[in-house]
Amino acid sequence: MKFSISFDDIKEASKRIHTYIHRTPILTSQAINQQINAQLYFKCENFQKVGAFKMRGASNAVLQVSEEEKKRGVATHSSGNHGQAIAAIAKQLKIPAYVVMPSNTPKIKKEAVAGYGAQIIECEPTLQNREKVLNEILKKTDAIFIHPYNDDRIITGQATAALELLNEIQNVDYIFAPVGGGGLISGTALAAHFISPSTQVVGVEPELANDAYRSLQTKILQPAVPTQTIADGLRGALGTKTFPIIQQLVKEIICVSEEEIIQAMKLIMQRIKIVVEPSAAVPLAGILKEKERFKNKKIGVILSGGNLDLSKLTQF
Amino acid sequence: MKFSISFDDIKEASKRIHTYIHRTPILTSQAINQQINAQLYFKCENFQKVGAFKMRGASNAVLQVSEEEKKRGVATHSSGNHGQAIAAIAKQLKIPAYVVMPSNTPKIKKEAVAGYGAQIIECEPTLQNREKVLNEILKKTDAIFIHPYNDDRIITGQATAALELLNEIQNVDYIFAPVGGGGLISGTALAAHFISPSTQVVGVEPELANDAYRSLQTKILQPAVPTQTIADGLRGALGTKTFPIIQQLVKEIICVSEEEIIQAMKLIMQRIKIVVEPSAAVPLAGILKEKERFKNKKIGVILSGGNLDLSKLTQF
Repeated sequence: MKFSISFDDIKEASKRIHTYIHRTPILTSQAINQQINAQLYFKCENFQKVGAFKMRGASNAVLQVSEEEKKRGVATHSSGNHGQAIAAIAKQLKIPAYVVMPSNTPKIKKEAVAGYGAQIIECEPTLQNREKVLNEILKKTDAIFIHPYNDDRIITGQATAALELLNEIQNVDYIFAPVGGGGLISGTALAAHFISPSTQVVGVEPELANDAYRSLQTKILQPAVPTQTIADGLRGALGTKTFPIIQQLVKEIICVSEEEIIQAMKLIMQRIKIVVEPSAAVPLAGILKEKERFKNKKIGVILSGGNLDLSKLTQF
Repeated sequence: MKFSISFDDIKEASKRIHTYIHRTPILTSQAINQQINAQLYFKCENFQKVGAFKMRGASNAVLQVSEEEKKRGVATHSSGNHGQAIAAIAKQLKIPAYVVMPSNTPKIKKEAVAGYGAQIIECEPTLQNREKVLNEILKKTDAIFIHPYNDDRIITGQATAALELLNEIQNVDYIFAPVGGGGLISGTALAAHFISPSTQVVGVEPELANDAYRSLQTKILQPAVPTQTIADGLRGALGTKTFPIIQQLVKEIICVSEEEIIQAMKLIMQRIKIVVEPSAAVPLAGILKEKERFKNKKIGVILSGGNLDLSKLTQF
């Protein structure tokens, strides 16, 4: 198998970004292990800077932009964590950042991006309008576009979470990661492929956003369908760079219901006492759904982020 | 000043319980530090066994019960974390446990106690009825009563959280702890008194349950008033053993509103990405309320527990 990303690329990314990110802890829960009858190791990217693994890829990409280009700034479209991550790394490097955000993005996410000093440009919440508005910004500012996932630098950066996990925990049978645009799972699969080829990488996605599942089944990249899945970080479709990696390295994608996602999220909050966003609970939902198959296995789980909208704590 | 609890007692308790509890991490948040303009060190007892510091005192008390008495079992009354802690340590020691719980205790808390194999005895939710039912149980079973806070062994156990904090972080100006029955804050104050006498211990309690504040003001132990404060762990009144320690060692009690508690809880969840129960957020609410006074200070904060009722996540 040949990939455009090498083991050296991932190791270099890890060095490149290490002062810009947190090395996140790996937590375990006796109660969850007992419930599943397996050993789970949660890589806690909810504790990552900006509250999500996206800081890894964004840092790795922006740090590789040339000095001349940095002056022009960086731009992206994102309703969520990637936008925050681009804004945060741009702030650290003191360069301009432009983030195109759908007008229906929760206020708290807009405030977070604005808090890092990035300029927010609102667009209508459709794919077409988002790309149109982004292109206008790129034309106007000459900024460098950093795609949220369909970019080797992003995929390589996201791979560093699994790199850390597999360096710390030996003989992992499975790694579970959520599937949105595929940046995290393709990076995870590459890291496992290079470090621990016997480790199987399993993707989990919401039934309401099962484009990756359908893409693997049909062997044709499927577009996203409009969805309101609670796992808002996973609404996007795979990209032309992530799909081929996933096709080669990810044997299986499990799809989970909204209710299963909610139950997994509550289980994490109740038992590990950490805040995770719905997207981050999707892998555990997959394990719980098929727990008989994973009995006595050693399983790494990438908890992708912790940016839960606390306004949903409505009784408080 | 003379106390019935010595520094050696606290150090011995720490050794006695150390295989029965977690050494909890101390976390920091750049965002919260910036907001307050101080350095805060959060001692995360939400990650403690049973999700609360109560495991420290309960372990320390039950481990000192004689072998003969252990056979008869241990009993307590508690609507919350102390009941779970007694049940959990009793389970580890394979001895019977009886927990008297008010009939209006949330189902999740009853299930947790039952999950450790303790016997739950329901009572009407009044102080009188609780004590009556407890006495009946004690008479019937001959079990050893472990009071939730008015017991030197409990206070000594709770002191070990501050012991760990002060051993790990030097030159702490203040330690903040919540005030309910006073077990945690009196233990905290004793630990600071012995280890770092220049550290000031500040208590924080809900305005709706401000018996400790009134007791300090009037120099007379005030009874609890019926309250529905969201900080349900802090509804009790000080005891005859905790009040004198607090009188001597705690200079100040800050009272906070329900809204201030909720905001502090959300801030912790949003910024530190950990789950805390309302009672645990009370100390931070106090710091935020008077933040001008704590500028540039080094402050330890005991995050007392993480047993948040997730059914309040109503939109999920």
